[in-house]
Amino acid sequence: MNNTSDLSASVDKLLEDLHSGNRRLLAKTLSFVESTRDEDVAVRDAFLARLRPKHTTQRIALSGPPGAGKSTLIEHLGLSYVATGSRVAVVAIDPSSVRSGGSILGDKVRMPELSANDRAFVRPSASATTLGGTAPRTREVMMVLEAAGYDRILLETVGVGQSEIHASDMVDLFVYLTTPAGGDDIQAVKRGIMEVADIIVVNKADTDRARTQKTIGMMTALRSLLHSKISEWQVPCLPVSALHREGIEELRTRCDAFFEQCAKQVTDIRREQRGLWFDELVTERILQRFFHRAEHRTMREALRSDVVQGSREIFDALSIILTL
Amino acid sequence: MNNTSDLSASVDKLLEDLHSGNRRLLAKTLSFVESTRDEDVAVRDAFLARLRPKHTTQRIALSGPPGAGKSTLIEHLGLSYVATGSRVAVVAIDPSSVRSGGSILGDKVRMPELSANDRAFVRPSASATTLGGTAPRTREVMMVLEAAGYDRILLETVGVGQSEIHASDMVDLFVYLTTPAGGDDIQAVKRGIMEVADIIVVNKADTDRARTQKTIGMMTALRSLLHSKISEWQVPCLPVSALHREGIEELRTRCDAFFEQCAKQVTDIRREQRGLWFDELVTERILQRFFHRAEHRTMREALRSDVVQGSREIFDALSIILTL
Repeated sequence: MNNTSDLSASVDKLLEDLHSGNRRLLAKTLSFVESTRDEDVAVRDAFLARLRPKHTTQRIALSGPPGAGKSTLIEHLGLSYVATGSRVAVVAIDPSSVRSGGSILGDKVRMPELSANDRAFVRPSASATTLGGTAPRTREVMMVLEAAGYDRILLETVGVGQSEIHASDMVDLFVYLTTPAGGDDIQAVKRGIMEVADIIVVNKADTDRARTQKTIGMMTALRSLLHSKISEWQVPCLPVSALHREGIEELRTRCDAFFEQCAKQVTDIRREQRGLWFDELVTERILQRFFHRAEHRTMREALRSDVVQGSREIFDALSIILTL
Repeated sequence: MNNTSDLSASVDKLLEDLHSGNRRLLAKTLSFVESTRDEDVAVRDAFLARLRPKHTTQRIALSGPPGAGKSTLIEHLGLSYVATGSRVAVVAIDPSSVRSGGSILGDKVRMPELSANDRAFVRPSASATTLGGTAPRTREVMMVLEAAGYDRILLETVGVGQSEIHASDMVDLFVYLTTPAGGDDIQAVKRGIMEVADIIVVNKADTDRARTQKTIGMMTALRSLLHSKISEWQVPCLPVSALHREGIEELRTRCDAFFEQCAKQVTDIRREQRGLWFDELVTERILQRFFHRAEHRTMREALRSDVVQGSREIFDALSIILTL
């Protein structure tokens, strides 16, 4: 794909597929965007450069520990948005797929109603991989979905390590999901995530009302000790039972209130995120170009191994890389 | 400095200065290594490539919130090492210097006895800057100090944001410093730092013995809930009064025990750290080479500004960068 007219034809075809409204073609386009093949980079970039969101969009991350009920909540929050006339897309960043290296099937099973809805699109997180140092293409996937006309993007992230903090750099609104916890439960005090959360949800509230109230009290007290991301916004802590569809409308209303009250901040957040994304992409592409040649990659691996083993000094290895 | 023999002469001069044992020359060498001037890179790299540690070294980070008494503790721990025959160097990573852009004076005042000791060297953290995307040269500074014959490197970091986690990637042993805390004090439960800490110190134990014991109990309970970095090592939680020199010998003994018991793990940690450092340096230098030309830098800034303002699409801006 070195020829300019070939490239242009490929991009036109991708745009045509995207605007066809065909969900199978949309899925195919997303797979192409998530591709890590070097030979796809030029077409992918040219395609992404032509995308514009169809509507004003809202990007919402929902994060929480495994078993907190994220999928069920997203299913019902998604349906609630759809009922108000929105078009909803769900994207998952799942670190487990990094470990297994495979794709996560079963999203359609986990969100059966939303998946079947014409105004919704559920994207299994097939390529949430950081293998080879390539970042997952979550932001690119969101761009494509927004250009396809989805105006609410729900990003599902498992609350493990840094992934949720990374997710907060990609969205406007961050919802943290937890469950009724015991008083000693350290799980309840993840400071990092508490600091990025704009809304806290205590899910499975139906399983233990007293504990739910206690958890809400604890979370609220904890929040009041922490730095606020947006001083105009009071972080609410809401009891929800996604399974029994309790508190879903309240959650959606609070999300809407956030976008209404914090419109200016959301604009600022997006500006800042664009700058950071640009920096990341520039770094990535310049390195990619440098290590495009297989000999360069082989040399880097060999030198790195020497450095790790201690058989070569690090600045000595670096000087060899820089002669390439 | 394009001439090879000039470069070689400069490197020889730096090595001569380093091995002279003159502390003023050592300080000058460190300033050169911390330099962010592009024209110094070649000489600096060639110099660093020639360095070898004189002895087996131990790198210890001491981190904690402002006001926890880090300087006083480091002064007395340093003196304790010196008394056993070690040569001790203190390096500070202080995020406040990033903000102010200036150097931190007063280290000699803060550690008067250690600074005056012939077997010690206290390095003010003049260049702990990340301005322009350049990482602070802390690892390079440690390399120079080790080549100069210092066998214990004490790295002082203020426990703000990510700086302490970053510090843990540069050292063998991580000491977390806190003070007697109230039961509700969220300060006490910084999960991230608790997970990287190999030794916990409750400093200012003399100010409130009961609270100190309570804090130790709480920290110990908390630690037991967390993942252990090294399964063979039981993280101790020690009461110390740096001001009254209580518990300093116990702390040093525990540090020694760590290096004895975890020798294998320290070797593994250093290997991994070398690999990560190599990756960082390769990325940094390739970008540096790309943006060496002022026109490239100007172009990047202009495009970034367009992207942030929203007047240009991000992949469009990226494609222009990649034509450079």
